Amino acid sequence: MITSRSNARVRQAADLAKKSRYRNETGLYLVEGPKMVGELPQDQIECVYATEKFLETHGPDFSALPHLQTVSEEVLKAMCDTQTPQGILAVARQCRFGLSDILSAGKPALLMILEAVQDPGNLGTILRAGEGAGVTGVIMDEKTADIYAPKTVRSTMGALFRVPFLRTGDLAAALEKIRQSGVRLAAAHLEGSTEYDEADYTGPVAFLIGNEAAGLSSRITELADIRVRIPMEGRVESLNAAVAASLLMYEAARQRRKSR
Amino acid sequence: MITSRSNARVRQAADLAKKSRYRNETGLYLVEGPKMVGELPQDQIECVYATEKFLETHGPDFSALPHLQTVSEEVLKAMCDTQTPQGILAVARQCRFGLSDILSAGKPALLMILEAVQDPGNLGTILRAGEGAGVTGVIMDEKTADIYAPKTVRSTMGALFRVPFLRTGDLAAALEKIRQSGVRLAAAHLEGSTEYDEADYTGPVAFLIGNEAAGLSSRITELADIRVRIPMEGRVESLNAAVAASLLMYEAARQRRKSR
Repeated sequence: MITSRSNARVRQAADLAKKSRYRNETGLYLVEGPKMVGELPQDQIECVYATEKFLETHGPDFSALPHLQTVSEEVLKAMCDTQTPQGILAVARQCRFGLSDILSAGKPALLMILEAVQDPGNLGTILRAGEGAGVTGVIMDEKTADIYAPKTVRSTMGALFRVPFLRTGDLAAALEKIRQSGVRLAAAHLEGSTEYDEADYTGPVAFLIGNEAAGLSSRITELADIRVRIPMEGRVESLNAAVAASLLMYEAARQRRKSR
Repeated sequence: MITSRSNARVRQAADLAKKSRYRNETGLYLVEGPKMVGELPQDQIECVYATEKFLETHGPDFSALPHLQTVSEEVLKAMCDTQTPQGILAVARQCRFGLSDILSAGKPALLMILEAVQDPGNLGTILRAGEGAGVTGVIMDEKTADIYAPKTVRSTMGALFRVPFLRTGDLAAALEKIRQSGVRLAAAHLEGSTEYDEADYTGPVAFLIGNEAAGLSSRITELADIRVRIPMEGRVESLNAAVAASLLMYEAARQRRKSR
């Protein structure tokens, strides 16, 4: 059992919780709590840390996980991001998808393209709702929040283990390739000329969502085939980014259910 | 100019930022930043505090606000909830709506009923999307997050100044009155038998949304006229509460636009 907070593995986990750069360099990240660790594919597990008390209660489900180490309560707390650790965490290997993997999904593409979405909770919520709506992939630029930050991981509720995604340094180039593969690019825009439920999303489509405050840049907006607008009553100026993304993804899902 | 952090007004604002009980007792709350203070109806202003630097830059719009006091930068920081104050905040009076006010809106009711929605960001996001979708009121039980908490106020983006809402100690009794006024009660439920876009929401309707982890209680679910389910693909077990609420409100808004 690891009982010292100065153990190298303890410091590694604490660094993975706090430092985006360290996560990038190592290709690792933290997965916290029994629900998420239980959903993490075993071939992505680098190491699992649990307290003896946790294993006494939850033993049968978790004792057989690969690379399991017991740690003291104090050590687990030092490792993780939350104030009230749930007895178990895993160090996991990051997944790397290529654009061609994402574009070769069996069914018509339903993609979310994110430009500078900065709130980790919004990003995680988009992944979670995206899995529910049946998205075939999520593509992010480098200004979008780190999908492997603990808060983002938590708010995906496990969707990041199942929805293919990638981060690109050249969003415009990725959009060009996506369009060339036959996917229609629909930008969510406050000044869109088409109401979001008037366009047809039964064919391959990618929705573009921009930054919480500034929306999509004009450069990225210009690459879209269509600009769609979510009607708003009252004096509200915009919707939360995760809400807007969810409305679009679920409108596509609705149309596809109806057209079957 | 107030320069002392021990000034009684400074301590009042700091208490309003931190203490739900103090907000309840005084009927006051904090509104932070130029955008939100600018949208706050003037008859709800108890007092406005701004730095001289803020007024030099934004003067014309804000110098005429009632009960304006200048404060030092240090004092403003001590008053407010955020690490990076935006130069201005207001102490505002809470609004009190009655159920009959909410039920006598001119157009067909579109209500959100919240049971134990605990995340302040979710609550604020529901108000914001609700204004956009045209809801006529939001009704919360006492286990729902405090709508006047700074984080909730911020995430409403001003919608709490415009969407009527009330908090009730007896949600079941409120639901009975709502139903008696001719409003159909639709519970968002993972085991609902009707897909959310198969029910008709063009008449008066109230959507019931439950706690983030536990959903609606069986007691409240039983009071509903219909249980609606948002279809989910993949292995996602539920949607974020604000996302689910937004999908339902916007489905009602969509049906009403189409039926005009």
